[in-house]
Amino acid sequence: MNIPESLYWRNNELYLLDQRLLPAQEEYIRQSGIEDVWCSINTLAVRGAPAIGIAAAYGSLTGLHKNFSLSAEDFGNKYISQAEYLITSRPTAVNLSYTLNIMINVCRKSVADSAEKLYTELEAQASALHNEDIEMNRMIGVYGAELISNGCRILTHCNAGAMASTGIGTALAPVYTAHKKGIKLSVYADETRPLLQGARITVWELMKAGVETTLVCDNMAADLMSRGMVDLVIVGCDRVAANGDTANKIGTHTLAVTARHFGIPFYIAAPSSSIDQKTVNGAGIIIEQRAQEEVTAFGVCITAPDGVKVYNPSFDVTPNSLITGFITEKGRITPPYDFSGGV
Amino acid sequence: MNIPESLYWRNNELYLLDQRLLPAQEEYIRQSGIEDVWCSINTLAVRGAPAIGIAAAYGSLTGLHKNFSLSAEDFGNKYISQAEYLITSRPTAVNLSYTLNIMINVCRKSVADSAEKLYTELEAQASALHNEDIEMNRMIGVYGAELISNGCRILTHCNAGAMASTGIGTALAPVYTAHKKGIKLSVYADETRPLLQGARITVWELMKAGVETTLVCDNMAADLMSRGMVDLVIVGCDRVAANGDTANKIGTHTLAVTARHFGIPFYIAAPSSSIDQKTVNGAGIIIEQRAQEEVTAFGVCITAPDGVKVYNPSFDVTPNSLITGFITEKGRITPPYDFSGGV
Repeated sequence: MNIPESLYWRNNELYLLDQRLLPAQEEYIRQSGIEDVWCSINTLAVRGAPAIGIAAAYGSLTGLHKNFSLSAEDFGNKYISQAEYLITSRPTAVNLSYTLNIMINVCRKSVADSAEKLYTELEAQASALHNEDIEMNRMIGVYGAELISNGCRILTHCNAGAMASTGIGTALAPVYTAHKKGIKLSVYADETRPLLQGARITVWELMKAGVETTLVCDNMAADLMSRGMVDLVIVGCDRVAANGDTANKIGTHTLAVTARHFGIPFYIAAPSSSIDQKTVNGAGIIIEQRAQEEVTAFGVCITAPDGVKVYNPSFDVTPNSLITGFITEKGRITPPYDFSGGV
Repeated sequence: MNIPESLYWRNNELYLLDQRLLPAQEEYIRQSGIEDVWCSINTLAVRGAPAIGIAAAYGSLTGLHKNFSLSAEDFGNKYISQAEYLITSRPTAVNLSYTLNIMINVCRKSVADSAEKLYTELEAQASALHNEDIEMNRMIGVYGAELISNGCRILTHCNAGAMASTGIGTALAPVYTAHKKGIKLSVYADETRPLLQGARITVWELMKAGVETTLVCDNMAADLMSRGMVDLVIVGCDRVAANGDTANKIGTHTLAVTARHFGIPFYIAAPSSSIDQKTVNGAGIIIEQRAQEEVTAFGVCITAPDGVKVYNPSFDVTPNSLITGFITEKGRITPPYDFSGGV
C-alpha cells in the first residue's frame, strides 16, 4: 500500500504536507518559525488530533537549535514559552495540550547542563511520541480490523486517516489493516462540509492505497443506510470525555443519530491520548467556532449572499449513548463507558 | 415584503430567473425555443416542483405562436409533441407531468377551429395553473403559519420558497405568512449539498424579505437540535406517494431521522399537485441520479481527486412514519396517511 506521510522532521526542521492544498497539490511546507507552526495548526495545513499532537511536539522546537548559547535554564524557559504559545493554536484537540504538556514536563524535569543537551532530550521525546503514534495507529488497525469481514461497506466522516496522524490513521487504520490482509471492503467517504476533508483528503489517501472508495455528501447517510448500503460506521475523535461523550468533526452527531436509527454499528477510533479523563462529560468540551467564510465561499466561488449570518462550529459532541464502541490501541471498549481512571 | 418572482410570461415568451447564477447574478433568461426550456428545467435554471410545473405549462407553448398557419389539428399535434418532450426533462418532479397532462388534455378536448384559438385556450390554461399555484402557496402559508408562534426557530432544507414556485413558496410560505403577521421568528437554512440551493437561493430570498436567517451546513442538524435551537422543521417535496412516503431533495431523510430523534415536529409542505395517488409507496418513486461533477467540483474549484466514484442521487425518500404532518392548500393532514383517493 502507498500511504503518504502527513509530516516529517529533518535537520531540526518540521515539514508539513499542506493539507489545505489537497488534492490539487502535494506540497510539504517547511516551518521556519514558531509562528509558522501556530498558523499551520490554526489554519489546518496540518489537522487531525494525532497529527496535530506530533506536529506540535516537533514544532515546539522550531528555531531553538539556534539558541545553544543560552544557559540551560534560559533555553528551557524559551522552550516552555514556545510550547505554551502553540497550545493556543486550536482549543478543542486534546492531543495538542497532551503532547505539549509531556514535552514541557521533560523540559521542567531535565537536569541537562546545557541548552544543546536539553534540546537533544526534547527532540528525543518528540521522536518517541512520533513512534508511539505510529504504533498506536497500528494497534487501532489490529483491533478495528476484527470488525471488518469480506464485503463490508464502511462509512466514515471527515479524515481520521494517515493525514490525521503520523501512521496509518485512526478511523482508517482498521480499513488499511483489513485491506492489507486481503479482506474485500469498500468505503463511503462523507465529503465533510464545510472544509471537505473527506472529499479532499480521505478520498485522496484511500485511492492512493487502492481502497475502493465512493464519495458522498454528508446528507446522504439516511439514504445509503435505508437502502442497506452501509454495514459499519467508523469515525475519529478530537476529544473524548470521561463518560464517553465524544467531540469530533461537525456532522458526526447527525451521522451517529442516523446510524442508531438504522441499527448500524457506530464506532469511534480513539487513541488513548484523545481521552480527556478530567472532562466529566461532553458539556465540558469547548467547541471552537470558525470563520463564516468557510461556509459562504469555496475557493473563489461565493456560495451565499453577502452579509448572511452563519453558524459554523468546528465540532459537535456525540453523546455516549449513540456510540457502539471505542477502538483504542489497547483494545475495543463497549458501554458503559468510564474513562475517569484512563483506558 | 420584497419577494422576487421565479418566472414570468410576456408577449408569448417565457422568462426564467436563472437560479444557477444566484446569488451572484439576478438575470431573467428568455426561452427562445422548446430545447431552451428543456435545458433550463434539466440543468436547474428553474427548479422546485411547483415552479417547474408552471415553467413547463408556459414553456410548452414556446415558439408556437409562429405556427398559426397550421390547421388546428396539426397545431395540436405539434403542441402535444412539445409537451411530451418537456415531460422527459426531469423524471422525479410529479408537477411536470401533472401540469403538462392537464395542458395536453385541454389540447385533446379542444373544439377550436384554428391554431390561434387553440393557442389562446392553452395559454389561458397555463395562466390558470399559474394563478392556482399562487393561491395554493397562499393557502399553505395560512395553514402552515398556525404552527408558528413568537420566537419560533424553523429549520428548512433546500429551497421550497418563492424561487421553487410562482408565489410565496411551499415550505417558506408559512414563514412569510407568519413574518407578515408580525410574528417574531428565525430560520436556519441548510446549505443543501451538492448544489447549495439553501445557501444560494433560500438565504437570498429570505434576506430579501427581511426574515432573520442563519446559514448552516446540512450536517449540523443534530448539533442544533441537541442544543435546543430548533422548534420546527418544514421542507418541501417533489413527489408524495399515496401512503405519504415523500421524495424530496437529498438530505431530507437524514434530517427527518434527526428531527425524530430529538422529538422535533417535521412537516412537509405539499401542494396537492405533488401528491401522486397512483404511486402506492416510496419504493415506486424513480430517483434521478445526477452528474458526479456536482459533488467533485464547485464552480472552478476541484474538491475531490480525479477518477473518484461518486454516489449522487438528486432525491431521497422519507418514509411516512417520520413525517409529523403535511401542510397542503386544503389544510394540515396528520397520520395515518392515505392519499390514494386524493387529498
